[in-house]
Amino acid sequence: MLIGSQTWRFDSKPFIIGASAVVGPEEGAGPLSADFDFSYDNLEIDEKTWEKAERKLLEHASALALVHAGISRDELQIFIGGDLMNQIISTTFAARKIAVPYLGVFGACSTSMESLALAALIVDSGGAQYAMAGTASHNCTVEKQFRYPTEYGSQKPPTAQYTVTGAGCAVVSAQGVGPRITHATIGKIQDLGVKDPFNMGEAMAPAAADTIVAHFRDTGRTPADYDLIVTGDLASVGHGIVKDMLNKDGLSMAGTEFNDCGLMVYDREKQQYVMAGGSGCGCSAVVTYGHIFKKLKRFELSRVLIIATGALLSPLSYQQGESIPCIAHAVALEMEEGVK
Amino acid sequence: MLIGSQTWRFDSKPFIIGASAVVGPEEGAGPLSADFDFSYDNLEIDEKTWEKAERKLLEHASALALVHAGISRDELQIFIGGDLMNQIISTTFAARKIAVPYLGVFGACSTSMESLALAALIVDSGGAQYAMAGTASHNCTVEKQFRYPTEYGSQKPPTAQYTVTGAGCAVVSAQGVGPRITHATIGKIQDLGVKDPFNMGEAMAPAAADTIVAHFRDTGRTPADYDLIVTGDLASVGHGIVKDMLNKDGLSMAGTEFNDCGLMVYDREKQQYVMAGGSGCGCSAVVTYGHIFKKLKRFELSRVLIIATGALLSPLSYQQGESIPCIAHAVALEMEEGVK
Repeated sequence: MLIGSQTWRFDSKPFIIGASAVVGPEEGAGPLSADFDFSYDNLEIDEKTWEKAERKLLEHASALALVHAGISRDELQIFIGGDLMNQIISTTFAARKIAVPYLGVFGACSTSMESLALAALIVDSGGAQYAMAGTASHNCTVEKQFRYPTEYGSQKPPTAQYTVTGAGCAVVSAQGVGPRITHATIGKIQDLGVKDPFNMGEAMAPAAADTIVAHFRDTGRTPADYDLIVTGDLASVGHGIVKDMLNKDGLSMAGTEFNDCGLMVYDREKQQYVMAGGSGCGCSAVVTYGHIFKKLKRFELSRVLIIATGALLSPLSYQQGESIPCIAHAVALEMEEGVK
Repeated sequence: MLIGSQTWRFDSKPFIIGASAVVGPEEGAGPLSADFDFSYDNLEIDEKTWEKAERKLLEHASALALVHAGISRDELQIFIGGDLMNQIISTTFAARKIAVPYLGVFGACSTSMESLALAALIVDSGGAQYAMAGTASHNCTVEKQFRYPTEYGSQKPPTAQYTVTGAGCAVVSAQGVGPRITHATIGKIQDLGVKDPFNMGEAMAPAAADTIVAHFRDTGRTPADYDLIVTGDLASVGHGIVKDMLNKDGLSMAGTEFNDCGLMVYDREKQQYVMAGGSGCGCSAVVTYGHIFKKLKRFELSRVLIIATGALLSPLSYQQGESIPCIAHAVALEMEEGVK
């Protein structure tokens, strides 16, 4: 199952039989609008606190994913998820409602692919027939917890990113129809000493590059084996850096679309408040489970590699002068008999 | 692999080939003193911040576990861990030093068995030859984050628990010598509406009871199949409640030692400041990887079931009036050719 030093090859190639992406108004006004299963028209998500709003996004997405998978909650055997909140309360409270065995994970914005990799491993090894992976973020919970109250109106540098309001879930199954999970590459912590929490892209780029290089080394594949390779939420600054780093490593992305979920989720020309682009656990989740999943299902893509990146700082570690340890986990999806 | 509805049976029965428990002065003065691999004589763990102290405990424990397992860091293929800090910074920073592929998890004080269950799954499925599970807590990081600054000197009710200062790690291997991991039962969230963060034992007891009942239902075993069953950190209040709950469920613990890591780690007569007993991620970790692991190795125990419990609240969820969702994950260990 382990190939090379950090990649799992799933011999049974578990299926994503259903997925969902539920977003807030700003994501719903973005270029991927048509691919989201539900867009709330208010940032409050009809709730009284930001935390309840984030939880509701995940509850909504998990319910929709089950509907799309065509299974009932009783058939689901395990839920794996996490989020950016202290003690991952959004996921925990959603898991209380989902009411199946639950494993909480934390990988900051890499949580989307960490949880999907584990769901695939569990299904591949016979640990469940149906496993759900999910994550969420909300712009205002994250601003409140990691930075300043939004009411404070603090200004940010153009390297800063805008946390996506959204949740995404996927139901992974041993049998069925849909995109298949073929590989997962588990990342190592990378920390080149960046300390600026308003420049997460620069901090996370080395982790993305390291995991991408490991994926191709372990699998023997080349970028040309994929028709889309996306990083999680490096946005404009970090995505430029990772391209440079890969070029220096002799890994050319020529012939492959190489993009970033943080660049895809908003129209940065029209939505200038997003600065360098999107971020947050929800960023790669809604792009993967909304946009990419649907393109795979429609055979518009055949093989995709998603590398979700996470900046594993806390406000306290930053205040204590620590640098930002980062990580990236990659998952490869494949639609059989697809057209390139 | 999945038996019943929430238990994994590991057919290869992965081995714990090495483990370690590193503690602070109060645990080192307790009844399990001789079983800990290292006891610091100062609560600062020779560091300048409580957070650095907690991280150092985990770094120390992980290094010792590798030595005890007789493998180098280069041979270790994955590290799974978590802690109670916001964004699990202690584990993340320790993982930076361990420098192998890393999966962060969060299950509050159930993290010890959540990470061990995943390490066993990964090794059992061929996802790694060697996987390490680890967790840590420090009394003062937790007091500072969840309650009040220790300098404030706030009084607590006798139902309150005392967070263990300690870290524990285990190296799980496909081959070797040592106690074997036979089963893991993954818990569901239980929340009976308890809102008092000074009475975690009462909040967590239903989760422990639910997972214990599920374990015996799924495996067809009875409590008499184990010579020790321990809950993670219910302490005196919660452990009494879980006994009552199990009795009502018709599950008698007669013929089996039924104890709690939070009751075992301190001498509550001599160390009255611990109130109802120990808690924290480090509690079940140091008792399992220090005390129980050594008793299994010496054939003084043959089969043990550890049910680590976690209270998945955050200070914010408490302040917003939410109740405390709880979870418990159980792992069964077995020493072959052991004596009862």
